[in-house]
Amino acid sequence: MLKEFEKQAKKFVPPSEEQITACREKLSSLQLQLKAHKLPVVVMMEGWGAAGKGSLIGKVIRDLDPRFYTVNTKSSTPQEEDRYPFLWRHFSRIPEAGKLAFFDTGWMQDTVRAMERDELKKKGYKARIASINAFERQLSDNGYLLIKVFVHISQKEQRKRLEKLENSKNTAWRVSVHDRWQNLHYEDCRDNFDRYMEDTSTPWAPWHILDGTKRSEAVWNLLQLLTSAISNALENGIPQAQLPQEEFPMRKFIPLQKVDLSASLSQKEYEAQLDSLQDRLQELHNILYRKKIPVVIAYEGWDAAGKGGNIRRVTSALDPRGFQVHPIAAPEPHELARHYLWRFWTRLPKDGHIAIFDRSWYGRVLVERVEGLCTETDWKRAYTEINEFEKELAYWGAVVLKFWVHIDPETQLSRFQERQNTPEKQWKITDEDWRNREKWPAYQEAVNEMLEKTNTQLAPWHILPSNDKKFARIQALRILVDTLEKALKG
Amino acid sequence: MLKEFEKQAKKFVPPSEEQITACREKLSSLQLQLKAHKLPVVVMMEGWGAAGKGSLIGKVIRDLDPRFYTVNTKSSTPQEEDRYPFLWRHFSRIPEAGKLAFFDTGWMQDTVRAMERDELKKKGYKARIASINAFERQLSDNGYLLIKVFVHISQKEQRKRLEKLENSKNTAWRVSVHDRWQNLHYEDCRDNFDRYMEDTSTPWAPWHILDGTKRSEAVWNLLQLLTSAISNALENGIPQAQLPQEEFPMRKFIPLQKVDLSASLSQKEYEAQLDSLQDRLQELHNILYRKKIPVVIAYEGWDAAGKGGNIRRVTSALDPRGFQVHPIAAPEPHELARHYLWRFWTRLPKDGHIAIFDRSWYGRVLVERVEGLCTETDWKRAYTEINEFEKELAYWGAVVLKFWVHIDPETQLSRFQERQNTPEKQWKITDEDWRNREKWPAYQEAVNEMLEKTNTQLAPWHILPSNDKKFARIQALRILVDTLEKALKG
Repeated sequence: MLKEFEKQAKKFVPPSEEQITACREKLSSLQLQLKAHKLPVVVMMEGWGAAGKGSLIGKVIRDLDPRFYTVNTKSSTPQEEDRYPFLWRHFSRIPEAGKLAFFDTGWMQDTVRAMERDELKKKGYKARIASINAFERQLSDNGYLLIKVFVHISQKEQRKRLEKLENSKNTAWRVSVHDRWQNLHYEDCRDNFDRYMEDTSTPWAPWHILDGTKRSEAVWNLLQLLTSAISNALENGIPQAQLPQEEFPMRKFIPLQKVDLSASLSQKEYEAQLDSLQDRLQELHNILYRKKIPVVIAYEGWDAAGKGGNIRRVTSALDPRGFQVHPIAAPEPHELARHYLWRFWTRLPKDGHIAIFDRSWYGRVLVERVEGLCTETDWKRAYTEINEFEKELAYWGAVVLKFWVHIDPETQLSRFQERQNTPEKQWKITDEDWRNREKWPAYQEAVNEMLEKTNTQLAPWHILPSNDKKFARIQALRILVDTLEKALKG
Repeated sequence: MLKEFEKQAKKFVPPSEEQITACREKLSSLQLQLKAHKLPVVVMMEGWGAAGKGSLIGKVIRDLDPRFYTVNTKSSTPQEEDRYPFLWRHFSRIPEAGKLAFFDTGWMQDTVRAMERDELKKKGYKARIASINAFERQLSDNGYLLIKVFVHISQKEQRKRLEKLENSKNTAWRVSVHDRWQNLHYEDCRDNFDRYMEDTSTPWAPWHILDGTKRSEAVWNLLQLLTSAISNALENGIPQAQLPQEEFPMRKFIPLQKVDLSASLSQKEYEAQLDSLQDRLQELHNILYRKKIPVVIAYEGWDAAGKGGNIRRVTSALDPRGFQVHPIAAPEPHELARHYLWRFWTRLPKDGHIAIFDRSWYGRVLVERVEGLCTETDWKRAYTEINEFEKELAYWGAVVLKFWVHIDPETQLSRFQERQNTPEKQWKITDEDWRNREKWPAYQEAVNEMLEKTNTQLAPWHILPSNDKKFARIQALRILVDTLEKALKG
């Protein structure tokens, strides 16, 4: 792409002062429309070292109100980030609805650097590109306008700039070893940039190459690009991407109606097995921590199915320094204003740690679907989005486990009644629980479709028959122990 | 304190099964009361290496619902934290109202480690202890129950435990070089612990020493301690600490009525000075970045005084990778549920970066005071709390600057009218602005008291006469440039 760009010797007609002013005013008024339309915009600025990405952003935000944008820069202490999946840093910084987020730089640079260091072999590169394309598609499908900009300069121009920077004490620190290396290996680097851009250019997130040689020209082109892209999105909406045909290898699923709920355990069997499984889990937790393997466990289930008690039997075997339980309720305003997976991405465990979600991202295809809190298109698309999310976790090296804690309606009724009649348990039962209960068939349909479409081999569902809570707890511990042992062997 | 503790050879009467069950049930029911009373609880667990802090927490949280607590552990990648003030990590992890936060470990360990490394000389130690006492007092005054626990074991017991841990591959990694060192220098370490505890023991945040030798005894004592401390707080409230008599060295302040608002600049003068000041600011920003000096700027001022435009004249001189503007509006629910300074602590810049707050923590003594959003005790106490907060920033090495952007009521009126009559500016004017305008005298009183009580030498106020916006912009840039130059020399 860069070579072709160089060939298109475009003659640049410098804009008049009036044109610049008009364009700046336009951008400034567009930010209000962004806010009114709740449109979030991601501007990813990539390019050569010393191409002027930062100063270009600086020139553009001059007329924006700080309430409407953020600038995300690469952290200078990446150690923390290295303990999370590749996309974690980027996903956790997406803007909320109505705001612009500039990324200087975004997810391209990390990838191209890894290519340079030969860390992404054939398969690794393919997987990385698939992750990025899924990420960008998800952003777009969830209403984000994505503007990807590459600022291009020639080898000669880059060398000139690096030398100039190095000549002053106050700017010399800006020139990194990598910048120098990049200039010496310009051709190879260009090939990597080209390959990356070709592989990630999509109708909903195309690349825009800017000639960075002349600053004023670059600023003008960027201003025009932003105003036209934003105007266009406001007028015509965000292009909906096509869902990929990718098939996730699935495991067999059992519809809820066919689950045998009769199993139970005596108190004695329960206690004996609980002790030995918890001891084993404790040992495994130690090994996981040492080997830096992250574990993500999602609990879903009927109200009063016994999720809480089940989770406690797992956590009481764990060192509290190594796990966190995330109870998931209705999203807060700042969460609601972002991609629905954002609040889960930002709650991922560090490697070696365990995160347990008491309710999870499956809310999208359960409560949000049944209660009409999102559109049908939204929840239908979510199966793929969720499978992709869990694939990211698995590729990162996480053990991903999902439990459906299952009971029948009669058991639920008797537990509701017990809660109602026991003063210290009354807080656990609300009018909403009763309302949800009336929608049992709709929820059952949603659960079955969820089990069918997200029971992937990478992140399987396990149904825990919980009419007898003791049985369900032992079952959960056993599945967890078995899965962790398998993962540690594999 | 530890030596006396050792002397008090308390005879331990093991509790019966019933007593343990009753205590656990009590704790479990207390968490609901915490939630109902919106009481936040901080449990700081400190103690010797291998004393069993983590496993004690694990034993205690067994009966708690994960919705009601978090466990904060020391990050294993502290580099990022090193770029913030000492208290940043702890302040950013305080729980929200109605929840428990366990700290394993808290702010004691960092301090004692620094003592061991001889990093805290006489003056540094005193300042550190003052910071910690202010922090704990602020938590308590703002409704946090603070429970500080030290788990004690003997040198012999510690050695035995470390050896046992080292004998297994899966636990050997838990023994740090420091644990070994601590055991070898047990006496000195005990002296440091003792000194720290004596210097930070207050009526509102006393120390509790637990004998960690026998696990079951320690668990029982901790359970009892937590239940009694929480019950007591629920019944009798949090003890209000006494505000310290500490005098902050103040600068002279000028009441708003006496500010000369007549100054103005011609367009030509403005442009010439703007260019040269912005150029200089850009250079200074580079040096600050290189020298890792953080800068915190707070903007307050009347509606329509020109804060936004003023800030933009500053930021357009800055590299967007090195600054962030934080527009401060009404707090979100998760912010409102915490100490009012929490949302500012969590927005501090990294060292070498600039944070500009468009409205700030002064909301406490301005809008919250005038609109009755907090109690009189709250805002009266806030002057000290804010001075302490800014002192932390200054001691950390930050340059702290505060601007009051000032206009007279007539100028405000004409700007409001202009906004109302200009379609693209209408979003800037709301009914609330008109309502606030009617309260001008009450706000003026609040501003004057703020200027009087927080115009410290460490973090001075600067009034920017902004009837002529150009004059105010140049003034802000000049003060900023002068202050930064002085800081770089000093």
